Formats: sequence, structure tokens, C-alpha cells
Amino acid sequence: MKILLASLPRFGLAVIALLLSLALRGQAGENPERPPNIIVVFADDLGYGDLGAYGHPTIRTPHLDRMAAEGQKWTNFYVGASVCTPSRAALMTGRLPVRSGMVSRERRVLYPYSKNGLPESEITIADQLKSAGYATACVGKWHLGHKEPYLPTNNGFDYYFGIPYSNDMDIVADLEAAGGYWNFFTSPAGAETESYNVPLMRNTEIVERPADQHTITRRYTEEAMDFIRGRGDEPFFVYLAHNLPHIPLFASEEFEGTSQRGIYGDVVEEIDAGIGRIRQLLEEEGLAKNTLIVFTSDNGPWLPFGIQGGSAGLLREGKGTTWEGGMREPCIFWGPGMIRPGVVTDLGTTMDLFTTFTALAGVPEPEDRPMDGLDLAPVLFGDGSSPRNTVFYYRGDELYAIRVGDYKAHFITQGAYGGEERAEHDPPLLYNLSMDPSERHNIAEAHPEVITEIQSAVAEHQRELVKGKDQLIDLDER
Amino acid sequence: MKILLASLPRFGLAVIALLLSLALRGQAGENPERPPNIIVVFADDLGYGDLGAYGHPTIRTPHLDRMAAEGQKWTNFYVGASVCTPSRAALMTGRLPVRSGMVSRERRVLYPYSKNGLPESEITIADQLKSAGYATACVGKWHLGHKEPYLPTNNGFDYYFGIPYSNDMDIVADLEAAGGYWNFFTSPAGAETESYNVPLMRNTEIVERPADQHTITRRYTEEAMDFIRGRGDEPFFVYLAHNLPHIPLFASEEFEGTSQRGIYGDVVEEIDAGIGRIRQLLEEEGLAKNTLIVFTSDNGPWLPFGIQGGSAGLLREGKGTTWEGGMREPCIFWGPGMIRPGVVTDLGTTMDLFTTFTALAGVPEPEDRPMDGLDLAPVLFGDGSSPRNTVFYYRGDELYAIRVGDYKAHFITQGAYGGEERAEHDPPLLYNLSMDPSERHNIAEAHPEVITEIQSAVAEHQRELVKGKDQLIDLDER
Repeated sequence: MKILLASLPRFGLAVIALLLSLALRGQAGENPERPPNIIVVFADDLGYGDLGAYGHPTIRTPHLDRMAAEGQKWTNFYVGASVCTPSRAALMTGRLPVRSGMVSRERRVLYPYSKNGLPESEITIADQLKSAGYATACVGKWHLGHKEPYLPTNNGFDYYFGIPYSNDMDIVADLEAAGGYWNFFTSPAGAETESYNVPLMRNTEIVERPADQHTITRRYTEEAMDFIRGRGDEPFFVYLAHNLPHIPLFASEEFEGTSQRGIYGDVVEEIDAGIGRIRQLLEEEGLAKNTLIVFTSDNGPWLPFGIQGGSAGLLREGKGTTWEGGMREPCIFWGPGMIRPGVVTDLGTTMDLFTTFTALAGVPEPEDRPMDGLDLAPVLFGDGSSPRNTVFYYRGDELYAIRVGDYKAHFITQGAYGGEERAEHDPPLLYNLSMDPSERHNIAEAHPEVITEIQSAVAEHQRELVKGKDQLIDLDER
Repeated sequence: MKILLASLPRFGLAVIALLLSLALRGQAGENPERPPNIIVVFADDLGYGDLGAYGHPTIRTPHLDRMAAEGQKWTNFYVGASVCTPSRAALMTGRLPVRSGMVSRERRVLYPYSKNGLPESEITIADQLKSAGYATACVGKWHLGHKEPYLPTNNGFDYYFGIPYSNDMDIVADLEAAGGYWNFFTSPAGAETESYNVPLMRNTEIVERPADQHTITRRYTEEAMDFIRGRGDEPFFVYLAHNLPHIPLFASEEFEGTSQRGIYGDVVEEIDAGIGRIRQLLEEEGLAKNTLIVFTSDNGPWLPFGIQGGSAGLLREGKGTTWEGGMREPCIFWGPGMIRPGVVTDLGTTMDLFTTFTALAGVPEPEDRPMDGLDLAPVLFGDGSSPRNTVFYYRGDELYAIRVGDYKAHFITQGAYGGEERAEHDPPLLYNLSMDPSERHNIAEAHPEVITEIQSAVAEHQRELVKGKDQLIDLDER
């Protein structure tokens, strides 16, 4: 336990207990000193209500449901933003995207004609794990810059395979003729993989264009498996970021038309089956007891697309908003013998994965910058509580809402695209999310003392906040 | 298998296989010929989204969740009406309440000043099981007539203990002074058990008035346990119909203030814990492998009561309506070694419990009247499908909607109490519930052929329907 003991002060007791237990039981493969493998599976636009274990009536996700039952099912787990690019920046850096500049008031995400990407100065979770000796792979959607300096292989990953941005970009269609953007996706042309000229990359090279999206979910799964297979004693980190169920929706022949929930269900069930295949591989490779799997999604369901979009279950609204449906996600932690099984109602965020996993790997956290992640080890591996008490809900670089404990205050609300207009609230709207997860009953009048407390938390946050330079604003000439 | 072989033609292969398997494994207690014990736990106004296994983020129901994982979790299970009295009539009789007359256009349920109750001519599930040699107990809310001829002990139950109607009745308060009916329940007076002069009965005698509602959930559980304890080889049927989480909400000292979801959560968690105690007792008594437990609720959440009401999860609307939130309920079947574990998306209804359990007990179904239940044995005990393809959504004696396969057509829609006004739809609103469980996307225009098919199913139903005489209309003089 050489590496680990060196950084002992950074570790909670729970992690020490976990590592000792791994060592004593010899579950860490041939070398009991090594930290566990880590697989983060990240879905795209999957809603809080879209898995069986989270209450969907017709989408069948037996593999994820089983992992939720064997591991931890988190019910108050948040992403760092309600749209792709900033949410992914938060996961990768362990920092609010407003710090790295991966947000903008002008546009919400990076586009194929965007100039920039994740600043070189940012440290990614892959950088951290690589420095601890992990082999690192990014398979799937990146969306933190598609130009070479910004690609995964320049951000701590040994290997990259995937579509570098969203699968609805590079549209090859006359959208006006197709009845507009919103109608295009449910039209026959919208269901053609050739309608999206998106590139598929291996490392820094484009290897296919347009990417065959029908097979993309299966190929991502298999690329991840190839990276894992035969790795033996070398610890690995796989970031498997599916491009789906973001529209346009595509499933492979084996899954298309098989679910009760239409193509959306086919896609989610194919992702679930892929996780089952990865689990099976871990068993075959003797790695099942030394690998952590985390499953979550980048933001809530894209509701304006009707049945092509997912469901936030009992949560209000979806993608693009700072209502709960936009930023609270299913999150399952699985790792037999490591993760203490149960339902967890404590607060967690994707930024905490950075902190938790780099601590687990024995790497010090960056000390030259403000970090937003917290170490979830006490909950994951012990019987402690989450250190997190606060969640920030940004839209672009503006703080729209904040959760402190059970209470959430909305200073600004706004629908995703169209719909609810921007509205500022003073006093803020106030909800008790434990009592009222659907944000139906504004209790601001009855609890001015809570609002006062929340406002001081906001003031403190804003005092120390240094916003990063907007990385989304600059575009190539077209 | 004497009793059972006598009625062999009524049995599906799945049931025969189950009973043979019970006999061979000697799991049926000392006498392998006996059919399994049956416990039906019926909650009141619990919503589709109010259990952990059905996606609630903060209500903790570990016992029900475990039963759902070990047994069957049904996701398309319906009640016979969206309010108490007719829903309970459907469960008890295996018939649409419009046939028994337990519906009315004038009022939706029975009141303390109602004259009548379930007609003597009706045959209950308890009558059926009693005739097969079961000891039968009704513990909890009855709401099918509180006068002696209508009580459980005159409807096939050997024993009754409970409040004979809803726990919000017999209000002892000046509602106008309290700010009206809707405000009363969240006022301090509304949280006093003495504010409701409801009687608690043992068999046909009132033993406590007002009933102490703080302890009612615990006492119901313990009465059920007392009935089960020491019963040994005699098969039993316990209908445990909790009065809660119908408002007003009360929990015992052990649970009050303990959940994250406020008093509503306290109540649901106390019901869950009670089921855990019953399971524990079954283990101790050696009955766990010969007892079926079914858990469901009488109708959806009573939404106008705000956080005092439950959640229908991703389903639309709640109690009192014919939207999915009013009539689709969580339903868990548990019976180790009997119930095939899994998630079931097939259609089922509470009326099917009548048919399934009386068939299981080897009793012929009544042949002198139309029955609405179907035998779910192929799904419960085998790997077959549900025979059910149709669900009727009545409000009073009017057919508001019908589900045929995946499609639901609304001919009339209306909110519960206040809210959405009554509206007739021609053509009907049409939803595909497998694709669109939240009833968001009306597809009537695109599917006239489905509407034609549904209209012929309605016509056939209405041709054969003989409405029973309204049993809810007559009141005592006051």
C-alpha cells in the first residue's frame, strides 16, 4: 500500500477500511496494493424517471436495476449544468463550469464551428488517475472541444474513440423544408444516420463520417470492453459516454423495435444491455470485485421532443432548465465488496466523482484553484454521511438557483427552449425538496429565515467566485 | 390435492405446476394439499410514485422494495375506480362497481349517513375463500357499508377490526371557521385525532370512538399478526386495508417526524415497517414459503392536499380522475418459491385478484352473473402472459375512458375536485401508454383505426352491461 500510505492524510477512515479490506481479502487481482478500476458510464439526456429502478413503467433496464439493488441507488444526485458541454466540463474537472469558462450567455454548448474547448490549464479526472498509474480511455461523446488541443488524448486519456460532440450536429438537411428543427427529428430524414455528418474519431483522427449511429451504442460498449480485456493487474479508468439517448435516436438491429417504449426505449435498453456485457466481461476477467462502476447522465430529458425525449419522473421540467428535472439524475454506484448496498438520499454531484476517485487513487487534489467536488467515500464505502450540503444550479454563467440541505431557492426560472419565459423572483421561490420533490408548493412566505440563510450562502459563494473566460463564444469563420 | 383436483378444469397449467411443486417440496406446512395463505395489503390514496421501488426519492420503503425485487413488481396494474368505495367494491367482488351499484352520479363514496352498502347478492373474495376452508379476516378500512348487514362479518369474513369508512369522516369541527374543508387538514385542529369522531369496530361492535388514529396503522398490523399467529396448517386470508395515507395523516410515536417526506412519509414508512413485521412473523411461524402477499392501493394520490397528498410519479393527475394517476397503482406480488421474480408490464386489475385467488383455492367462480376478473396465474406462477387486454375507467356510472392494449381513449375528462372541468371528446383523446405513460401526446389524428377498434370494444361492453341499482344515493334523515 505504498502509494496509498504516502498520501494518508487525504484519506477518510472509510477509504482506509476499504483498501485494507481489499488487501486482506485479496480482491484486488494479483496485486492487493492497487486501487480499484473505475468505469463511469455517462448517458446523454436520460431523465430521472427513465430506468426501471427509478420508476419507469415500460423501459426495461434489468442490468442497471440489479446494480442499483446490489450497490447504491442515489436519489439526490446532481450534474453541474443542465446541458451537455458545461455538465461534462464539471464531471471532468471537479469544478463548476463557470470557473473553467465552459459556459456562455451567448450559446449553451460547443458547436462544430466552435473555436475553443476545455482550457489547457484545467486538470481532468483522467489526468489525475493517469498520474496514479491508471490506463485511461474515453469512449463516446466528448463535447469539450473537437480540435486537437482539446481532445481527450490531450486531456489525460491514453485512448479516445467517439463522436467529439452531439449526435444531432452537422445536420445535412434543409431544416426549413423539413418543417423546422423541432419537426426534423421525427421526420423520415431525421431518422437517417446520413442526415448528420458527424465525425467518428479514434484518438485524433476521423475514422468514419458520417458516423453510423445505428451501431454506435454497441460499438462504444465493445470499444470499452476491448480496452478492459486482458488488462489484468493494471488499474484502468474508462469513461464511457454514450451519445444516446440524445436525439436523433438510433438503435442497432438487435434492439430496434424491441422495447415497449419505442425507439427511445430501444436505445436505453441497448445501453443497459451493454452494461450487462461489461459486467459479464469483468466476471470473466476476474475483475468484478475490484472494479467500481458509476452510472449517471449529463442532464435531464429533452422534453420538447415529445416521445422522442425521456421522462424526469416526478421531477419538474427537464434539460436546459434549473428545475429538478433538468439537473437531478439517476446515479448508481456498483462495486461488490466495496460499495455498501442501499438507497442513498444524501446529496452528491458529478463533480464529487473527481474528488472521490482521485482520493481513492491516492493522488492529491489540485491546490492552486478552487475545487467544487467533495469526497463521497464516507457514504460509498462506510456508513457515514455525504459532506455535501449545497448544490448550485447555473444557467450559463448566471446562478439561477441553489439548494442548501432540503431547501431550494430559485432566483430566476426559465424554460428550456421556448415554453416558460425567464422570470426573476425576489423573494426567491422556495421549495423543500425532501417533502416536495416535484417543486409544486412554494413556501417562501412561511420561511423567510431559510431565505436569509440561503442568501448568505449565495453571497459567500459569489464573493470568492472568479469566472473563467468564456470558451464557448468564439466561432470559426463560416 | 382432493379439493383442488375436483375443480381441475378451472385451472391453468401454471397453477397445477405451482401446486405440484408446493406438494413435492413440502412447502405447504404440515399439509401439502392445502392452497397458499393470502394476505392482501391495501393502502389508501397511495400514489404510483410513492414507494422507493417505484421511484420516490425520499420515502424509504425497504421492505416493499425487497418484496418487489424478490417477487413481481407490476407497472400496469389498475384499480376498479379512482375513489374509495367503488374501488373497494371492485376488489371485493371481482366486478366493475357499475354492476353492483356501488357507484352514483350524486356522490362518489359512502358516508356515515349513507343508508346502504354492498348488496347482499354480491359474492366477495372472502366468501369464496371461506368456502374453500380459509380462515378470513378483514383488518382496517371497509367502506362498503357501516351498518350491520353490510359489515365484513356479513360478507365472508370471520373477523373484522377497523374503521368502517374513511378516516376524514365524522369531522367534529366548524369547517367554515377553520378556513374551509381544504385548509382544515393542515391546521392544528386537523392534526388532532379527536377532530374526527370515527368509530373503531371489532366485528359488529364499536369499541373506540373517536378511534385513536395515531396508533391505528400499528394496531392494524398487530391485529393482522394476531390473526396469523398460531394458525399453523389452516389456510388464511387476511385483507389488511390501512386507512392511511388518506388524509388526515397520523403516525405512531415511533414514526412521527422520522421520515424525510414529512408526515406523509412517516405514514408510508410505518405501513412498510408493518409489512416487514408480518414477513418476520411468517418466517417465525414457518409460513413464509406458503403465503402470498399482494400490496397495492385503492386509488391515486389526493393531489389538492398539497404535500399532505402523495405522488403519482410520472403519471398524470391523481385520485378522483380517470387519468392514469387516478387509477394505476403500485402492485407487488410476493411469495418465495411461488411467484416468479421480475418486473411485469402486463395489464392487471384488483378485480383479477378475486378470480386468481378463488381459482387458486379451487373454488368455482360465480356463473350466474358477469364477472370482470381474469386469472393472472400464467404470469404469477408461470412464464405466460396476462389474459387481460382491456381496462375500463369509470367515474360514477359513466365510462370516461378505456384502455385496449397499449392505447387509451378518453371520451370524457375531468379533474378531481375543482381543477380541470368536465370535457367530452369526439373523437376521443388517444394516448399510447407504453410509449407515453404521462399522457402528454394525443395521437388521435394519426390513429383513426385504433379509435374505431376501441369504439367497437366500448359498444360491445355497453351492449352487455346491466347497471346495478345505485347503492350510494340513499341517505338517513339527519
